[in-house]
Parts: sequence; structure tokens; C-alpha cells
Amino acid sequence: MKRICIDMDEVMADAVAEHLLRYNRDYQEQITRSDLHGKQIWDVVPTDRHSILEGYLLSEDFFGVLKVMPHAQRVIERLQQRYEVFIATAAMEVPTSFQAKYLWLGRHFPFISPSNIVFCGDKSILHADYLIDDNPRQLRRFQGEGILFSSHHNAGVTGYQRVEDWLDVEKLFLGGASV
Amino acid sequence: MKRICIDMDEVMADAVAEHLLRYNRDYQEQITRSDLHGKQIWDVVPTDRHSILEGYLLSEDFFGVLKVMPHAQRVIERLQQRYEVFIATAAMEVPTSFQAKYLWLGRHFPFISPSNIVFCGDKSILHADYLIDDNPRQLRRFQGEGILFSSHHNAGVTGYQRVEDWLDVEKLFLGGASV
Repeated sequence: MKRICIDMDEVMADAVAEHLLRYNRDYQEQITRSDLHGKQIWDVVPTDRHSILEGYLLSEDFFGVLKVMPHAQRVIERLQQRYEVFIATAAMEVPTSFQAKYLWLGRHFPFISPSNIVFCGDKSILHADYLIDDNPRQLRRFQGEGILFSSHHNAGVTGYQRVEDWLDVEKLFLGGASV
Repeated sequence: MKRICIDMDEVMADAVAEHLLRYNRDYQEQITRSDLHGKQIWDVVPTDRHSILEGYLLSEDFFGVLKVMPHAQRVIERLQQRYEVFIATAAMEVPTSFQAKYLWLGRHFPFISPSNIVFCGDKSILHADYLIDDNPRQLRRFQGEGILFSSHHNAGVTGYQRVEDWLDVEKLFLGGASV
């Protein structure tokens, strides 16, 4: 059975939506996802407010409230019937997120066993056939086949099989939607 | 550069010493490490007290106070000069331990980058040449070469290259002690 690793932020969980929500609320701004095309949120927010952005990530309630990406639950549950599925998130970048990320997975993806969850830093450590990730830096280091999950910031990136959303993942790995 | 993964509990951190300390203190017992030869602590403690043992593991201050295994710091720092070193702990078994384990590593092994720390469940996910672990179940699933780190509970286990302590690890991977 082939093994697929799946990233969390911007792939399973909509972190940028929450980031924009908090920033727009606190600074009465109207930055939208389309303003971030080809960019990170850090590129469109003035440098002297970067510590505010970091503060959102470090706050205990950030990761817990993230919305699930459309169709992620149904498609991952289907993937489990044909593949060994692991969740692999670069949680070491935000150590305060461990507990919130673990609880979020349990709440929204109760069918994923804790033994198949990986909190790591450098994803070259993953022993898997595929990695679905929005971060080209992680895909470059991964030893298997990288699948680039489309996100505002990776708009211009080439060199990987790209999926636009979870329906695209379903098509790629399962040949289409279930009836 | 070859890659070595290193387990935490009973390899880098002396968890069983703290487990015995708390149990002996709370029940006025004198169980020693040698009483655990070939056994887990669960095998020598009456079943109706197993929830007490679990409670120790779940308490927030358990993993933070663990003693470092003799020579682990010096040998791991030396290993880093010749190998890529990752720390891989089955933290998903005790999700309350994430933060304490992370802080413990930072305090006692500040020379290990957070990007080289992995909290996982099933260690078959690790992409590495070697795994140094006291748990034969994890070594069986690991795809590289498993090195069994001697511990009271694995006394009778065969089928793996065995190291008795960190001096043994140093000899195996570096050919002996540094001058």
C-alpha cells in the first residue's frame, strides 16, 4: 500500500483566512486572499507589524479555530481506503501550536489515528511515496514525489505536479469523485 | 552524510527512574531498576494501580524533570559532526508531553535544531539510515537499520545490533571516545 503524507496549514486547515481575519479586524484593513497572489502575508503587511502577525500564530487559540479546507474530510477518508495516510506538519516552527494542532485533528479528522500524525521541522525525514504540501521548500527536501497544493503564495511555482484543491487530489489519487 | 534518528525516553532521557521515584514515594515501595529486568514497570505494579502510573506520565511536570542519560550530550554533539542527527520520539502516545519534551530538548541539547525534532507515533515514517531506540516494536517497523538501546524491559530481545549505553553508541558510530 503506497503512503501519502499530507501537510496541515493551507492544505487541510485554512490558516491564511484566520490570519487575514485577525489582521483586518485589528487594523481596519481589507486585505483579501487575492491581494496575496504570489506572495506571503508578510510581503503585504508593513515590516513594523510583522511581530503582530507572529503574535497571532503564537496565540493559543489560533490553530484551534481554523476552518477545514473544502472536501478535505471526505477525500482523506476515501484516500485511507487505498493508501496509508500520514499527517505531517512543520509544527516545530511554532512550538506553542502542538496541543492545538493535535486537538484540531482529533475534532475534524477523528478517523486519523494519532500514530499517523507527525510534528516535524524538515520534511526530508518523511518516509513516504507522496507529500501533498503547499510549501515548495518542503517539497524540494522530500525524497518521494511532491504534490504542490495550490495556495496564494505558491502561484508562480513550477516543477511539481500541482493540485488546485481537494477535488483535484481526489481525481489524481482516486480517479474521481465517489458516487 | 548518513542520517541517525534517536529516540528520547530511555535513550536520551531516564523516564523509568522518575516513574519509579514517584511510585515508590507514593506507595512506600522499594522497586528498583533491577526488579524490572525483562519487564515493563506495568508488569510489576498491581493492575489496580496502573491508572496511577498513567497519571504520572500525564502530569505536566513529568517529562520536564527527566535526567539526561550519561554521556548522551557529549556523544550526540560528536555524532553531529559526522552524521545528520534527528530526534524522533513517539510523543503522540502522550499528547500532554509535547511542550515539556520540546523544552527539555532545548534545555539539555541546545545544539539540536528544532527542525531536526520529530514527534510521531509509528516510526516507520522515518526516512533515515539508523534508528537508536529501546523499543523493539518501533525498530521492527523502521525501514533502516535498527540499533537496540539496552533497557530493563528489552533484556531478552535479540535480532538487533545492541548498544548498552552512550559509550557503546560512540564506539559503534565514531570508533571510540574522543581524546
